[in-house]
Amino acid sequence: MAILTLLTDFGLDDYYVAAVKGVVLRLAPGVQLVDLTHGVAPGDVAGAAFLLAATVPWYPAGAVHLAVVDPGVGSRRRILVAESGEALLVAPDNGLLTPLLPSCRGVRAVTRSDLFLPGPGNTFHGRDRFAPLAAALLRGTPAAELGPEIDDPVRLPAEPPRASPGEARGRVVHIDRFGNAVTDIPAAWLPAEECTALVAGRTISWRVACYADIPPGEPALLEGSLGTVEISLNGERFDRAWNVHLGAPIRILWRAAGADNGF
Amino acid sequence: MAILTLLTDFGLDDYYVAAVKGVVLRLAPGVQLVDLTHGVAPGDVAGAAFLLAATVPWYPAGAVHLAVVDPGVGSRRRILVAESGEALLVAPDNGLLTPLLPSCRGVRAVTRSDLFLPGPGNTFHGRDRFAPLAAALLRGTPAAELGPEIDDPVRLPAEPPRASPGEARGRVVHIDRFGNAVTDIPAAWLPAEECTALVAGRTISWRVACYADIPPGEPALLEGSLGTVEISLNGERFDRAWNVHLGAPIRILWRAAGADNGF
Amino acid sequence: MAILTLLTDFGLDDYYVAAVKGVVLRLAPGVQLVDLTHGVAPGDVAGAAFLLAATVPWYPAGAVHLAVVDPGVGSRRRILVAESGEALLVAPDNGLLTPLLPSCRGVRAVTRSDLFLPGPGNTFHGRDRFAPLAAALLRGTPAAELGPEIDDPVRLPAEPPRASPGEARGRVVHIDRFGNAVTDIPAAWLPAEECTALVAGRTISWRVACYADIPPGEPALLEGSLGTVEISLNGERFDRAWNVHLGAPIRILWRAAGADNGF
Repeated sequence: MAILTLLTDFGLDDYYVAAVKGVVLRLAPGVQLVDLTHGVAPGDVAGAAFLLAATVPWYPAGAVHLAVVDPGVGSRRRILVAESGEALLVAPDNGLLTPLLPSCRGVRAVTRSDLFLPGPGNTFHGRDRFAPLAAALLRGTPAAELGPEIDDPVRLPAEPPRASPGEARGRVVHIDRFGNAVTDIPAAWLPAEECTALVAGRTISWRVACYADIPPGEPALLEGSLGTVEISLNGERFDRAWNVHLGAPIRILWRAAGADNGF
Repeated sequence: MAILTLLTDFGLDDYYVAAVKGVVLRLAPGVQLVDLTHGVAPGDVAGAAFLLAATVPWYPAGAVHLAVVDPGVGSRRRILVAESGEALLVAPDNGLLTPLLPSCRGVRAVTRSDLFLPGPGNTFHGRDRFAPLAAALLRGTPAAELGPEIDDPVRLPAEPPRASPGEARGRVVHIDRFGNAVTDIPAAWLPAEECTALVAGRTISWRVACYADIPPGEPALLEGSLGTVEISLNGERFDRAWNVHLGAPIRILWRAAGADNGF
Repeated sequence: MAILTLLTDFGLDDYYVAAVKGVVLRLAPGVQLVDLTHGVAPGDVAGAAFLLAATVPWYPAGAVHLAVVDPGVGSRRRILVAESGEALLVAPDNGLLTPLLPSCRGVRAVTRSDLFLPGPGNTFHGRDRFAPLAAALLRGTPAAELGPEIDDPVRLPAEPPRASPGEARGRVVHIDRFGNAVTDIPAAWLPAEECTALVAGRTISWRVACYADIPPGEPALLEGSLGTVEISLNGERFDRAWNVHLGAPIRILWRAAGADNGF
């Protein structure tokens, strides 16, 4: 059974998500629909890009992933179709695919306007353009038939984490429902030995393997579910307790040959 | 695969939606379930009616649409089954089907109490009555076997939009997650020429084709995804910025022969 | 088609639910996924236990129910697989199954770590352990092959309702989206005659069959959808109007031989 995941900023209280699904089910009957999330903040392309990249690798080969966070709907922005590993991606060309681009072969800009529905207005391409495109892929239309390859997809500005002797620098790239702060620093960068993190002007010294090992009232570093360093409090939201926001910088320091960092 | 969409005011945090789905899957195995929304405000029949009418036309022929916003549950209110185009509708007789009634043939009041489950209490007909009725339709039971036709379904009071030379009058019938104000004035009523809208004591002169064309800080009219006039700000909620609420009246004026409206 | 229901405290705005579903669909293709709810308050095992027990009985035989509210993730807490009636349950061993345990045969502690995924970190067993276990059951692996039976699953402290001549005592065990207070007192305990409930220092004398029969402004008792006494106001939230919270005690009194309760 073909699988379509859906990621939007439409919320769950409107008719938008259901209209997209109706069009898909009309054009590609029998498809299995899975909501990635529809709770992306309106127009938050960077947040959507993070969630999409975190989810796609867990799906079966051949799944189609439709992501519509699209403040430019109706303008001249392009619609992209891309193959990432064994997955097929459909999204507006606004940076939403940025973290997945390194794994993409054949990013294409859709030119097959014959597939679009003549829906009223020009404000709901999720229903009128993205849904029929996803349905075409789900019915087996090769991506190559939807438009030519391009080499200039829009990319979000990126500031990758950096490592130097005895130090790693990165930032908080996601805050989850439990108030855990997910960073972009690979957990594999940290040494086996003691280390200290600096966040929001304060220091964190604990390092644990799971939430239950965090001592009461003390934030701790642990390896999160994406393989990066995560900061967490036990039974309390770390982000609120420490007033830490998305994008906050984090430094992690440890004793190393050639490092002059206080260790 | 048979399709059932679900529209309720049950919210997503309780066991109500899952119990309805369980009963449907027991009585009609293999049905594909699609949530229209469960975020209707408690008891908001008019809001549910709007969302249902906006969604149903996009679904494949034969889909069953179950809508349960039912403050009268357990009272003598009837349960309706109706055919609207190629869709089958199941809902309490409280006005929920009002906007779809013009497209309905054969509105029926259910009398087949033999299909109901003897669930505890009399407060959850979604599970005990509506779910088994939807399952019967999904298994292929003809609507005609569920009850006799009626000609007096409950209708919500309606105040349709009006047109006169150089003027259209209507109201805000929906505010979406992005703060866009959807009106009931057909976009096709507007002239090609300049026009001005009066809303909340202020005027709007911009008219655009898509959100991205709206000038910063200026609200604009555009054709929305239902073919009616929509009012939107770019990157900001129009409803909050202008303090516009559901039901707010809107007048749109333009120069026309015989019109004395200031143009 | 095999059915998997999902109950978590992951919320709907993150990638967690979609990652769990992706793993299930990779390992058990074609499974029908149904969200019970993901809106359980973070770490609220008791709330999750209530919702799970309220839902499971409505599902078809053979359905698998995966419940992940798991503050102890990554610690030495066990993972349980249990058969309850015709349902299969998978959950952490933290009390989540408590209300279903009386109906369970063969509660087992999972030892088949060969089924687990080596996902990054130790914080997301929903994806790395629970999803593959559910998939194994959905593919037909007998529960008996997943681990040995145990007789000491963790149980939440329970304070069951009590009946004595002319009196029933219990508490509010759930407050629903409409503000109805669901108690644990079986409705069948109440006499046919007049009775009075004492809640939050005030009395309730009305008893009705459905919400629509509740007189304006007066709370009333009725039989709720789980067969227990429920307290409701008409068109208003009872819990807020009376400041009644989860766990609030309730006494119901009626005239009976041998009772000295004021009737």
